[in-house]
Amino acid sequence: MPTFTRRSFLAAGSLATLGWPSLTASVQADEPQLVVRQADPLNSEPPLPALVQQWITPNERFFIRSHAPTPKLDAKTHHVRVDGLVQRELKFTAEQLRQQFPWVEKAVTVTCAGNRRYEHSRTKPVGGVPWQEGAIGTAVWGGIPLAALLRHVGLQVGAKHVWFEGVDRIEHNADVIGFGGSVSLEKALSRDGGLPGAIVALEMNGQPLPLDHGYPVRMVIPGYIGARSVKWLGRIHVSDRPSPNHYMQTAYKVVTEDRPQAWAAAAPIETWPLNSILCNIAPGQKVRPGKVLLEGYALAPGYAARQIQAVEVSADGGQSWTRAKLSQRMQPFCWRLWRVELPIAAGTGELIVRARDNFGAVQPASVPWNLKGYLYNAWQRLPIETP
Amino acid sequence: MPTFTRRSFLAAGSLATLGWPSLTASVQADEPQLVVRQADPLNSEPPLPALVQQWITPNERFFIRSHAPTPKLDAKTHHVRVDGLVQRELKFTAEQLRQQFPWVEKAVTVTCAGNRRYEHSRTKPVGGVPWQEGAIGTAVWGGIPLAALLRHVGLQVGAKHVWFEGVDRIEHNADVIGFGGSVSLEKALSRDGGLPGAIVALEMNGQPLPLDHGYPVRMVIPGYIGARSVKWLGRIHVSDRPSPNHYMQTAYKVVTEDRPQAWAAAAPIETWPLNSILCNIAPGQKVRPGKVLLEGYALAPGYAARQIQAVEVSADGGQSWTRAKLSQRMQPFCWRLWRVELPIAAGTGELIVRARDNFGAVQPASVPWNLKGYLYNAWQRLPIETP
Repeated sequence: MPTFTRRSFLAAGSLATLGWPSLTASVQADEPQLVVRQADPLNSEPPLPALVQQWITPNERFFIRSHAPTPKLDAKTHHVRVDGLVQRELKFTAEQLRQQFPWVEKAVTVTCAGNRRYEHSRTKPVGGVPWQEGAIGTAVWGGIPLAALLRHVGLQVGAKHVWFEGVDRIEHNADVIGFGGSVSLEKALSRDGGLPGAIVALEMNGQPLPLDHGYPVRMVIPGYIGARSVKWLGRIHVSDRPSPNHYMQTAYKVVTEDRPQAWAAAAPIETWPLNSILCNIAPGQKVRPGKVLLEGYALAPGYAARQIQAVEVSADGGQSWTRAKLSQRMQPFCWRLWRVELPIAAGTGELIVRARDNFGAVQPASVPWNLKGYLYNAWQRLPIETP
Repeated sequence: MPTFTRRSFLAAGSLATLGWPSLTASVQADEPQLVVRQADPLNSEPPLPALVQQWITPNERFFIRSHAPTPKLDAKTHHVRVDGLVQRELKFTAEQLRQQFPWVEKAVTVTCAGNRRYEHSRTKPVGGVPWQEGAIGTAVWGGIPLAALLRHVGLQVGAKHVWFEGVDRIEHNADVIGFGGSVSLEKALSRDGGLPGAIVALEMNGQPLPLDHGYPVRMVIPGYIGARSVKWLGRIHVSDRPSPNHYMQTAYKVVTEDRPQAWAAAAPIETWPLNSILCNIAPGQKVRPGKVLLEGYALAPGYAARQIQAVEVSADGGQSWTRAKLSQRMQPFCWRLWRVELPIAAGTGELIVRARDNFGAVQPASVPWNLKGYLYNAWQRLPIETP
């Protein structure tokens, strides 16, 4: 048997079936909650085996992505300003948002565009936080639909995009800027899959947002890369054009050359890509031949209509594939967990994982390299050692 | 009393409440079904008073927008090809589409981006068909969701946009091109407001598409300007980028200068704008002072969540406004009809109409001029003569 504890898959699959997570998943005392990939600013991700022990990721196990020191905001005095092409410029504390608008609680996966950058770097080095495969998590976000807030402040004709600006202070060139981005008004007002296209979130798994996750208020944009889910939200600005923020217009784009024209020509990344990851075996781990339990996650592309249809694993270099069992729980804009008992022969040196969605899209065997290492979603190839 | 026939508003409002239109609206024998604005290619619009006598526009009263002679296609042999970033390149006759995919029937308003261009031209002349206010209509479109077709042929990773190409032959520069455009895959796969984001339509109000409306197969894109609802559909192409077709990349954009850089920098128009029109009084018509019945249509911006909340009319230059009664029938991506009995004093020289939507957006008193006269939605100012 391989060197990992067998855990109850059914129990994990049944977590939160009533729309609320169990936060009692036991954590082994000798295991860190998060592995730090960069200390300052803080960027950390959970150990992979722990990540897929529950469909809802506990807050303590949720990857942290920062571009600057974590703001320590006073929820009593911090306001979110709403301005631009609105009828009334207004500002709200988190408590005012909670009291004045309809409350929603929705499970949504959040994943960094740079998830799997470490693997991507093996093709050719890229800059950025060297994420392994844990820059992803699924939480129940509590908050208000951005659409309700926009309806309250009113829109002017010509409104087409909604900008989000954080109050974090990022040193950029000779300047200090807040992290920012925008979504189309179409996305903001949509209700596709029964979810608001944009949630102004105050809670994460029933708790106030942790400091590192945007306390006291952040955006959550279902289906879009995490960069659009701006944390420590200070301003919502309605405009006729996309946000000019650096993280919308230059960073978080797929380019192969570091030229201003290339950055300008590329579209900002929106939806996240199809992906799947084996989580309970570490690279290079010793595995005893025989039936081996494999566990992981898979994520359909970031559209309400797209769902994971199959996850397949191969122990023979892709000659043959075995289909995994998928978790029953399947919701729009959320990952799916999977498991399979795979017969592994002596001498096997690599496990391969790939997913297919209900539109027939299959992860590619390889993907073109890009400068910042975004959206890596080639088949995962995991080296193992068998006696 | 003014010189128009009083008609039953309730009857009009109750048409098609079971999802199916009555096509028996009587037409006065001396009134043309459509007024020709350009003979070759054919561009025509209905007389306005007739347009709002029913919530569903009869096919014979539906504006016609052509860029070339109307193709006369044989439905038995005409195929729609599906290619690009798909798993299987396939082609389908209209009958094959009907038989192989789920059938939907949805009321959707279609309006030309150039509706009201004639008024727009009064600011400063613009090119294009001199539409008055009738380049709009609401039909029940029968067809299949594009999403179902895409799911059948399968998508490749990297699919982001869906191009549509007509088989009409438009002389453009020294070339002959088909009319074309594209929508994002997000729009194509959406189900916002309970409607497919893109319908491959075969029927219009229970009849095969009339020749001038795209027979045998066209697109219908709820909420988007009519230009995206490509007629005489010959090809659906899945790509990682928007369509390069002239009508996507140059025409159907809002610019104020005829420079290549200006066209390139502008985004293709997608959603239609907030608008409202008084239909049963002609410009310069003699109106006897007293209570006068006014009737018209209003259209909320092209988002599922946005609805007309109020239509207001003024007979005193905007000093005071009277709220119209709105038709009960209100569906996503569809117009709303309105009527009001307005006291009109002797000497009144102008009627003004404006609408507001449920997001507080109000039509502007004036709008900036643009080169092609698109998206004109200033308050309608209708000159009348009172004794």
